Amino acid sequence: MILTLSCPDQPGIVAKVSTFLFERGCNILDAQQFDDQETGDFFMRVVFDPYGADRDTLRSEFETLAKGFSMRWTLRDPAERYRVMILASKFDHCLADLVYRWRIGELPMDVTAIVANHPAETYTHVDLSGLPFHHLPVTKETKFEQEAALWKLIQETQTDIVVLARYMQVLSDGLAAKLKGRCINIHHSFLPGFKGAKPYHQAHARGVKVIGASAHYVTGDLDEGPIIEQDVERISHRDTPEDLVRKGRDIERRVLARALRWRLEDRVLLNGRKTVVFTD
Amino acid sequence: MILTLSCPDQPGIVAKVSTFLFERGCNILDAQQFDDQETGDFFMRVVFDPYGADRDTLRSEFETLAKGFSMRWTLRDPAERYRVMILASKFDHCLADLVYRWRIGELPMDVTAIVANHPAETYTHVDLSGLPFHHLPVTKETKFEQEAALWKLIQETQTDIVVLARYMQVLSDGLAAKLKGRCINIHHSFLPGFKGAKPYHQAHARGVKVIGASAHYVTGDLDEGPIIEQDVERISHRDTPEDLVRKGRDIERRVLARALRWRLEDRVLLNGRKTVVFTD
Amino acid sequence: MILTLSCPDQPGIVAKVSTFLFERGCNILDAQQFDDQETGDFFMRVVFDPYGADRDTLRSEFETLAKGFSMRWTLRDPAERYRVMILASKFDHCLADLVYRWRIGELPMDVTAIVANHPAETYTHVDLSGLPFHHLPVTKETKFEQEAALWKLIQETQTDIVVLARYMQVLSDGLAAKLKGRCINIHHSFLPGFKGAKPYHQAHARGVKVIGASAHYVTGDLDEGPIIEQDVERISHRDTPEDLVRKGRDIERRVLARALRWRLEDRVLLNGRKTVVFTD
Amino acid sequence: MILTLSCPDQPGIVAKVSTFLFERGCNILDAQQFDDQETGDFFMRVVFDPYGADRDTLRSEFETLAKGFSMRWTLRDPAERYRVMILASKFDHCLADLVYRWRIGELPMDVTAIVANHPAETYTHVDLSGLPFHHLPVTKETKFEQEAALWKLIQETQTDIVVLARYMQVLSDGLAAKLKGRCINIHHSFLPGFKGAKPYHQAHARGVKVIGASAHYVTGDLDEGPIIEQDVERISHRDTPEDLVRKGRDIERRVLARALRWRLEDRVLLNGRKTVVFTD
Repeated sequence: MILTLSCPDQPGIVAKVSTFLFERGCNILDAQQFDDQETGDFFMRVVFDPYGADRDTLRSEFETLAKGFSMRWTLRDPAERYRVMILASKFDHCLADLVYRWRIGELPMDVTAIVANHPAETYTHVDLSGLPFHHLPVTKETKFEQEAALWKLIQETQTDIVVLARYMQVLSDGLAAKLKGRCINIHHSFLPGFKGAKPYHQAHARGVKVIGASAHYVTGDLDEGPIIEQDVERISHRDTPEDLVRKGRDIERRVLARALRWRLEDRVLLNGRKTVVFTD
Repeated sequence: MILTLSCPDQPGIVAKVSTFLFERGCNILDAQQFDDQETGDFFMRVVFDPYGADRDTLRSEFETLAKGFSMRWTLRDPAERYRVMILASKFDHCLADLVYRWRIGELPMDVTAIVANHPAETYTHVDLSGLPFHHLPVTKETKFEQEAALWKLIQETQTDIVVLARYMQVLSDGLAAKLKGRCINIHHSFLPGFKGAKPYHQAHARGVKVIGASAHYVTGDLDEGPIIEQDVERISHRDTPEDLVRKGRDIERRVLARALRWRLEDRVLLNGRKTVVFTD
Repeated sequence: MILTLSCPDQPGIVAKVSTFLFERGCNILDAQQFDDQETGDFFMRVVFDPYGADRDTLRSEFETLAKGFSMRWTLRDPAERYRVMILASKFDHCLADLVYRWRIGELPMDVTAIVANHPAETYTHVDLSGLPFHHLPVTKETKFEQEAALWKLIQETQTDIVVLARYMQVLSDGLAAKLKGRCINIHHSFLPGFKGAKPYHQAHARGVKVIGASAHYVTGDLDEGPIIEQDVERISHRDTPEDLVRKGRDIERRVLARALRWRLEDRVLLNGRKTVVFTD
Repeated sequence: MILTLSCPDQPGIVAKVSTFLFERGCNILDAQQFDDQETGDFFMRVVFDPYGADRDTLRSEFETLAKGFSMRWTLRDPAERYRVMILASKFDHCLADLVYRWRIGELPMDVTAIVANHPAETYTHVDLSGLPFHHLPVTKETKFEQEAALWKLIQETQTDIVVLARYMQVLSDGLAAKLKGRCINIHHSFLPGFKGAKPYHQAHARGVKVIGASAHYVTGDLDEGPIIEQDVERISHRDTPEDLVRKGRDIERRVLARALRWRLEDRVLLNGRKTVVFTD
């Protein structure tokens, strides 16, 4: 079982939480804490073997403890896999990568749907067999309706997490707000550098020597959401914008996959405009 | 205060330790645990604000708890800085780097002595002012006596940690055993590749595309001690062995400095032939 | 057009080659040279716009120049794509990755065949549509026959380059010799560390802090062939052997893909036990 | 000898240059070219053994060839070392690093002066023995005069290259213009992210997962000059702004040292707002 929590810091949190688990016969396998001395907030992730302790009982009993500390918290059996929807546009390298990783068991999730603003034929070379596919093309005129359809689909499929796998449509503020803390985007630049459109072309024009990609939570503020993971690769003056796009695909894939896996393992906690990531 | 401990895993360790601290009014600022499922050993590092709790009292009271779990443990006030001896040979880049980092406050330690098998003139460009310098030249014939002198010096100066900063003499098994867990060497290769002499020349001959350096605890078995930290850098066919030596200096410096700083902050715990490193 | 050459160094090579091209109306777009001062060998790769110069004429005329310098050389129109055979075993992440990169145009090659020692059903989630698939299971008893069948297939399909994409069979010395300079293997360790079987388990047992993968030419000497590319990733004490296998997949994929792309672009020149790689 | 040149591309440049060298008995040891297909400009760096050819004769004869192609070019015997002035402020890690690298022969240059806006006592732990030190404190009122003094010093000392080694004063547009292509600054962020003051604090506030440093030519436009080299390091939510400052020192040191060494070896060619760097 995985417990995560955050609350205003005060003495005794670790003692109370670990004693709570010990008294119910649970054994802690891994635990990480973080005390944000700037904000005074405390963050914790505990993985424990419940040794037969019942999840629902644990949950209702923990509720009392949690209230006393004003905790935001989650308690989850990893066997209950998160339900994930993947959104894609024309470029399908992130989509293909996530689906492959899922198929070989690297991403512990249930895929509720693939949603794309391009038709299914776009993705013939990605093995989407067994996965519901929805074509929701978006134009300025239809954006409002299509977002409503998307939101309906998210609800109907009981989707927990939405992944924008190089989905090239900006979500409206309203939808972004509804998906707070559970919508992950991959931006193809090393944020905060090169926000917005065509970041590799911007990077080429500026003459940087390293490019990157950033996985972040989506907020109403474009490319300003809390960053979950970033990575980079060296480039040289020889690289054309097309070379950067190619090299970038590799960075995007691994950054998005890492961010998603951490999220699926409850390693990512929101901390205002930032994230606490208890990496493996 | 920093508490570290390791012991056979069993339920309740975190609960007991955190409750112990809570009952004495201490507040946990940072804590990391690791449960080695292979060996069944548990490792923990806790940083806490004692809020006036007395160190000696804490120590004697914790002794009882520790015994019950068969813990190896340390409890230290970071204000009591470790006493560190640095050994160097002809190449002084690691020595110069450590001394500089110490002078600007990056390495929280007291330097007990600089010991070298080359005379003081070798290091005129390193600012050793205020640091006791000992010239202990070593030959096959004098090795035994010089190691005895070194050991005497370590004891007299109450040295906690010995750093081999590109010290090119192999310690005898006997001395290595006495310094178990407190003697850090920097080897100029990415272990286990290229053990022994002239690793950069070996790397060049093999045609590798990445070189590295490894900081490890010294044991009687040359270059086989528990690894604390490693890092690497890309190279190309253009690089001569001399280029590798040059590029390697940068890797060695940062790897050794990182390993030492982690050791000074009680982040490095021995785990058989391996280390647990609770990095920052 | 891409010209590569290597020969004993002497003054005038660049002058002769560039003048040769200039006199035939060709314009050099990119050129890289390397003079191995250890062996006295010279290496060069030139990309030029032929401006209508005929390839066959260029080739026969260059032959004369090349003989005078005892050059090994190649002259190729990138439009004539290399013919590549991919060999795979049970783990198909490298296979899937190479096929995907090929489909989106990242790897300029023609795939002659997929050969596996596991049946086609193993790879249902990889889109092998349109690719000839050959199941050549190998046992101690059948190895000789199967290698003969493989070699026959290589010849019949006019395969230029053979890629061992985590193919878990060791080629015999005889076949390795026939494929000199055109068979690329991905070894899942940072060579020369952890040769042979189960390198991630070896790495875990040794307690290294960084793992890697190496793409190299196959020779009769296992994991000792000329290295083309290597890359690494940081790990920690938390990582189990299974985590290393997972993290390793990402390294293997990108290292093998990079090595293959460079080979497809004539960027990799043999230099005895080493390679000269004129990277982009 | 090292020849560098840039000019509008046209067929025959490599042929003409290499034939020029061959006819004078010179042997090319290393050569790199780059054809910027966007701007149509061609860049080249050639290292050759003159075999007794006289530098001044080569230079005057090359002038004719250069004119025909409208080349900007340099021809230099590495034995004529560049004359370098280092400017520093309170933080001296880059200063100390450069001086150390110079003393052990890693940076082939003559140091003309150390100039600081803090008094000499600030740097007691850096070995400045034998180096002219100038204290030029700057206030709003004195900036104009002090820049004039600095410029006079640059001229009097025949300084070729000025290095701002964490010098915290912004050069005026006028002085920046005079030093075009020969003044290197280290900015402690991964440009274009976090321009201006306190970049590590900006990075901490934004919650990035990787920080960096950038060495660039100084222009009148703050932190917008052509980038020569960048590098990065991973960070985590645990890192305070002070931790970033500490980790950043390591990045700054190696990025600035690399950029300077490349400049000293004539590997850095200006290409408009960008640089061509023929790395080793």
